[in-house]
Formats: sequence, C-alpha cells, structure tokens
Amino acid sequence: MLESLKSHVLEANLELVRRGLVLYTFGNASGIDREQGLVAIKPSGVPYETMTAGDMVVSDLEGRIVEGTLKPSSDLATHLELYRAFPAIGGVVHTHSEFATAWAQAGREIPAYGTTHADYFYGPVPVTEELSAEEIGGDYVLNTGRKIIDRFHNLDPEAVPGVLVAGHAPFTWGADAMSAAYHAVVLEAVARMAYYTATLNPACAGVSQALLDRHYFRKHGAKATYGQRS
Amino acid sequence: MLESLKSHVLEANLELVRRGLVLYTFGNASGIDREQGLVAIKPSGVPYETMTAGDMVVSDLEGRIVEGTLKPSSDLATHLELYRAFPAIGGVVHTHSEFATAWAQAGREIPAYGTTHADYFYGPVPVTEELSAEEIGGDYVLNTGRKIIDRFHNLDPEAVPGVLVAGHAPFTWGADAMSAAYHAVVLEAVARMAYYTATLNPACAGVSQALLDRHYFRKHGAKATYGQRS
Amino acid sequence: MLESLKSHVLEANLELVRRGLVLYTFGNASGIDREQGLVAIKPSGVPYETMTAGDMVVSDLEGRIVEGTLKPSSDLATHLELYRAFPAIGGVVHTHSEFATAWAQAGREIPAYGTTHADYFYGPVPVTEELSAEEIGGDYVLNTGRKIIDRFHNLDPEAVPGVLVAGHAPFTWGADAMSAAYHAVVLEAVARMAYYTATLNPACAGVSQALLDRHYFRKHGAKATYGQRS
Amino acid sequence: MLESLKSHVLEANLELVRRGLVLYTFGNASGIDREQGLVAIKPSGVPYETMTAGDMVVSDLEGRIVEGTLKPSSDLATHLELYRAFPAIGGVVHTHSEFATAWAQAGREIPAYGTTHADYFYGPVPVTEELSAEEIGGDYVLNTGRKIIDRFHNLDPEAVPGVLVAGHAPFTWGADAMSAAYHAVVLEAVARMAYYTATLNPACAGVSQALLDRHYFRKHGAKATYGQRS
Repeated sequence: MLESLKSHVLEANLELVRRGLVLYTFGNASGIDREQGLVAIKPSGVPYETMTAGDMVVSDLEGRIVEGTLKPSSDLATHLELYRAFPAIGGVVHTHSEFATAWAQAGREIPAYGTTHADYFYGPVPVTEELSAEEIGGDYVLNTGRKIIDRFHNLDPEAVPGVLVAGHAPFTWGADAMSAAYHAVVLEAVARMAYYTATLNPACAGVSQALLDRHYFRKHGAKATYGQRS
Repeated sequence: MLESLKSHVLEANLELVRRGLVLYTFGNASGIDREQGLVAIKPSGVPYETMTAGDMVVSDLEGRIVEGTLKPSSDLATHLELYRAFPAIGGVVHTHSEFATAWAQAGREIPAYGTTHADYFYGPVPVTEELSAEEIGGDYVLNTGRKIIDRFHNLDPEAVPGVLVAGHAPFTWGADAMSAAYHAVVLEAVARMAYYTATLNPACAGVSQALLDRHYFRKHGAKATYGQRS
Repeated sequence: MLESLKSHVLEANLELVRRGLVLYTFGNASGIDREQGLVAIKPSGVPYETMTAGDMVVSDLEGRIVEGTLKPSSDLATHLELYRAFPAIGGVVHTHSEFATAWAQAGREIPAYGTTHADYFYGPVPVTEELSAEEIGGDYVLNTGRKIIDRFHNLDPEAVPGVLVAGHAPFTWGADAMSAAYHAVVLEAVARMAYYTATLNPACAGVSQALLDRHYFRKHGAKATYGQRS
Repeated sequence: MLESLKSHVLEANLELVRRGLVLYTFGNASGIDREQGLVAIKPSGVPYETMTAGDMVVSDLEGRIVEGTLKPSSDLATHLELYRAFPAIGGVVHTHSEFATAWAQAGREIPAYGTTHADYFYGPVPVTEELSAEEIGGDYVLNTGRKIIDRFHNLDPEAVPGVLVAGHAPFTWGADAMSAAYHAVVLEAVARMAYYTATLNPACAGVSQALLDRHYFRKHGAKATYGQRS
C-alpha cells in the first residue's frame, strides 16, 4: 500500500519538473495515507533526475520517520501541520514557481481576475501574515504551517486549494499528491496571467460573484458539468 | 465525410498543444460541415495526449449529439451560437492562452499596434461586455456566444476573426478548424507584443488607417499578394 | 556558385526558426552575390519545415526574377533597396521577433543600455519615421526600404546593423545572410533586456561613450580582441 | 590533475547552455587549482556545441598561458583578479543572462525579496560603481575585476556569491566552477522573480533580517539542515 503511495508521490514530484515549476532540487510534494496516518515525502536536496519511489521518506503525523534512509524534505513540518489541520486533503506541494513566488514576495494576494482562476480557486489566493522574528527563530517550518492555517481561519481549504506564504512562495494541496501538483501548475499559470492583468489594468476589479460561482461550481460539487463524470 | 472533419478537428486541437496555448485539458476546437449542419468538437476534460479523431463529438446546430460516446466540450453552446450567427465561418477555437486572456481579464481591447496585428485583424480585437448576473445564472454558455455576437453588431467576423470575452478568455474562428487555431496562435503572439508595446508606450496610437488597410488587404481579398496563390 | 548562396540563405532562414524568432511562415532572409548582382531570398508563405535550397528565389537588383518557380518574399523590394544603398552588406533579415517588434510598435529606439548592446550596435537601434499615407498607398515595400535609408542618413550601416521600422518590425543586415540572422537574434535578446531595463529604471541613461567605444571595438575593426582571429 | 579541472570547467560552461543562460558564444566559466595556482577557462568565441575539455585554456594567476592552443576568454583578467582577491573561491562564471543583466543595466541592486534569494545570497546582490573613462580606456578587463573587489570592501564573497557590473552583466563564483555556474542559474531565477516583484509592488521592503538569517544558515555553515549531509 505504501509502495503505491510512494510511487504516486514520486510522480507528483516529477510533474513539477515536467511543468517547469522547479529548478535543481527546489520544491517538494507529499501524499498521505489517512488510514495509516503516514505521509510519504520527497527527500531533501536529491536530484529529480535520479530520484526513485524508494527514495521517498515515510513519516507519521508527528514527524517520526518510519521508513526510508534519506532525510526528508526540510519542509516536512509544514506539510504535516497542513495534514493535521485540513483533514480533507490528501496531498501537499511546495514550489518556488516564479510568478506565484513574485506575488508572495510582493505580499499581494492574487485577485480572481478571470474564469481560469475561478475554475480552481473560489476567491483570491490569499497571502499569510509575515512570520515574526520569534516565529522564525523558533520552530520555523512548523510555524510556516501555522501561519497558513491562521490565514484559513475563515476560508475553506477545499474551495481555495493554495496559499502564498509572505516573502516566501506558494503551497498548494488537493485530494492527493497529483491533485496538489495540478493545483501548483494551475496556480502558476493563474499568477502569470494575473501579473499581466494587474500591470495592464491596475484598477481591474476582477470577476463578479456570479461568474466566480458559475465557474467554480462548473468544476466542483454535486452539480459539476465539466469532464466525463456522469 | 465526417471522418475527415473529425480528423481535421483533432489536428486543430493538437495544434493548440504544439503551440503552447493550452494547459492540461484546457481549450477546445470545433469544425462544421455546413452541408449537413453538423459540428465536430473536442470532448470535455479528455487529455490531449491520448485523444483520437474518434473521440470527437458530433452535434447538430441545436446541440443534439448525433455521434460520439463522450460528453462534448462544456463550451459547445458558445461554438454553436457562433456558427448560427456567422454563416461564413467553418471553425471555432477557444483557449485561455496567457496574454490574450490577460487582455480579456483587464477588460481592454487589443489595439492594432503594428503590422503583425494588421495582417490578420482589421482593427482592434474587441472585448465583449461583461455578462450580467442573470445571463450568468441562466444559459451561461449560450449567453457567452450571444455577448460575442452583440459585440460584432457593427463588425465583420471575417475581417476580425477573434474576440476577448471580458473576464474570461479569447475565442477565434476561421474558414475551418485549423484556420481558427491559426488565428488563436497569431492572436496570442499579437497580444504578447501588444502587452510589451502598451507598457513601453502607454500613449501609443497604433497604426494608421492606411497601414491597417495595406497590411490587411495584402493577405486578404481579391488583391492579396502574400503567399503562392496566383 | 548560386547553389552555395541558396544553401547559405536557406540556413539563415532556418536559423530564425531555431532561435524562435519566427512563427509559421513569418520572416525572411536573403543574401547577395555582389559579383553577379543577384539576390537569393526565401519564397513567400512557404512552410519552413519543408523548405529546400531549391525553393530560394533569385532576383537581380531591379527585382527581375532570374531563377526559381515560386514567388519571392513579399518583402523583396525592401531587401533590394537596402542592397542598392548599403554596398558593404551581403545579407538582410526581416522578422517580427517579439521584443524588437514591440519597440518598433512603441515607436521607441532601443537605447544602448549595456555592453551586450554595445558589442554589436554602436549606438541606439534607430526607428524609422512612419510612412505617410501616400508612401503606404504607393510602392509600399520599396518605400519601407527608403525610410530605412533616410534614417541612416548620418549613420553607418556597418556600425549599426539593424533598424526598427515604425509600427512594423526590425530589419537587420550583415556581411552575409547568416551574419544578418545572427544580428536578428542578438537584436531580439538586446530588445528583451532593454524592455526589462526600461521598466525597472525608466530614467536609465545607458552606457557611457567610453564603454560603447570599448565594447564595440573589442569585437570590430583592426584592433578587435574577441574570438580566435589573429 | 589539470585534465580533471579542464573537464570540470567544460561541464560548468555547458551547464550555462543547458540552463538557457547564454546565447551563441556568450558567457564563460573558469576554475582554479589553488595548489598549482593555475586557472582553466573557456576559450574566446568558440561554439559550445563543439567545445571539448582540451579546448580549455590554462593560465597562471598573472595571465601567462601555460597550456592550450586557443586564445582564452576575453574576460580572463577579471576572473584572475577575483581569484587573487577572494582566496576562498574556486570557480568564476560570467554570463549576460537576461534578467540579471537587466538589473545591472538599470544600475539597481537586487533586493532580498524572498527566501529563494536568502537561500543563496545573504543580502542584496550588489551593483558595482560605473567604470570611469580612464578605467575603461586603460586595462578595462582587469579594472572590471577591481570594481567588483571595491564593491566587496565590506562584503563577504562567500555569503554573497555574485555581483552585477553596472551597465554590463553579472559575475558569480563558488567553491568550484560548477558551484559558480549553479549560482549563475539561481541568480537569474532570483533576478526574474525580483523583476516581477518590483513591478507588482515597487515599495516592497523585502525579507526581514530574521528570515534572511534563517534561510541563509539553513543551507550554509555548521548548522545547515538542508540536503543529505550529516
């Protein structure tokens, strides 16, 4: 069972390479087996070119390594915090993809400027607060996760499957690791188009609530009409 | 006969992939057989990598599926509205290509800034009005087509083979599906250059009427001089 | 002898494809045999994928076709005008490469912002005047060449091997067709960096005369030190 | 021993090609054997496609060529000045990569806008002063190196492994030639994201000192936690 999870997590990591979201060893994807409470994640600083499913590191939700000989991604504690707080998610991805990172660095949420955005994110992609010097000096990676959760205080993580960590970069999530990677790819495309939109029309108001509703629910929920599901 | 149409429509869809205009299952191309009044269109949410001509869905002009086991593109009703309103067109393409979409999101028409534009679009690429909450809540996909047609009230769809749907993305058309795809590719290049032009020179007035005429009619109409036709 | 010229001109045209400067059948390169007074140029509207050296069209300096079964590039008259006016050049290239075209559309010369520019262009890349309605309505392609030559009234075409035609796109030239293509590639890179520079620092003054001199003469003239020539 | 250095330096040069940092024969990488006091560097103006390890030119620290039949990179004197001044570095790279060059041309340092930057550069990437006409007219290439060293008067070259030469382009360095190339690649990505950040939020203050410290020391020094070292 974990072999299947590790293969799936490897594929999600490789999807980030195929889509041009990561440079060298940047980025990481993980997936969780909710029944066993175990998370498989990319090892730290290993080249994607030679990475195998067996290199994935398995951790429990408290960060105890239960399988794997390599060190896990240095962002593991953020992933675990998200899995603990958002019970509906099955995968987490972190990248420094360039346009999403630029919005995070600029400290600006990505407005819902169009239907591409609305198809995947039911509202702006939010930005966390900046971490304080104490939060950075303390358990920094865990605190990054806490800042994300604080920001989702009034937000549904299933309706808005991603966030920009201020001064850092995006995290996305989904039903499984590949879905989280898909959201990372779409977020980068949305961030790129939003950059061009914001510079073409700084006063752009974005889509109406009616259009946001229509597009989001076209792809999500019981009344979804997109794709081949019946 | 429809086999040929379906193959042609498949090729037009794949052209969007080859030219980098679509991400995942985004985008759709269709073509019409005017004699039979039948439209072949890409199925909804199917990966381009494995798509075959046999996956194309055939619909009549009222949206009744007459061939194909898959669900058609969720944008079918927009395509059909365009075919009904613009009798000279034989193909329709919809993408969320990044720069054209940015102009659509910004709610700005693309001015005819240069001869690349004038070679294909005889005037600015227009933007539709925004759909009202009622139009969105009603038959949204059909109403998208109606907004396009309203915008072409005083425009010739053969002289301006594309439009930006406000807050959404571009539609293009042409003599057949491949021609519509070609216009989608050129529109994206024109939109990209227009973005750089507008940010380099916000006051840019664009080409003169004389230059617009010269370039457009160089490639179109009885006196065209471009290419190998005699 | 012309076989060799036609092969060389084909290669220069294909270089434009390899470097991403042209879309579909856009762009054209030509070369001249000065002894025979004959120019080989790309045919009009033929796909690059299937183009052969034998497809190149040979014209004399007055535009009389002396070899080839296809129609020459619709820009032939501009090329010929440049060959007649600039006796030292052996090749001409025209593209709609995106950043150089954006500067041309914006009607702004490209300032010598850095040493990359200075290595190839001894001063700003100039913009022509706009063509008048009469010039456009008359022998438009020839008049495009004349506008370029007017702009070089006080400029040395060997020191500044390219120009932006206002509202249109760049032309470049060089010792032969491949050199002209090389200048087209470098011009696009220079235009791209200049775009980012101008938007980062609109007041940027560009390089000093001393730096312009040093870099230009590092690669050109009797005292050149770059490369393996002795 | 030098065979190994020359092979390593070739690989670093080819890494610049693979990562899209160089055009034609632009750019150069070198590495030093500190014990022997010998530097291997790319030859001047040789195509990357056919370059071999044997083409690398070996020079002593005073610029005397001790091995190789080709002329060394025209930037050799800058490399040597850096090796003499910064005893801890083992490799130097120079490119005209587009976004780093744009910041250099704009005369703006790259602020530490985010953690991607902080992972590699402990503070802004600085810009040198412009060279005077005398410095340009004199030993220009050497003086370029001196300007870099002047700029690092109060900076640690191991903590900030790169610089922007005003009106020119970046130089980076590292423990060896490949590390210098790695820093060149990361610098370009950081410069690109910084461009988007600065244009999205011109008032962006960048990361806090606490975040700069945390990310830099996560990857550097005795307490580094990133990667597989134990």
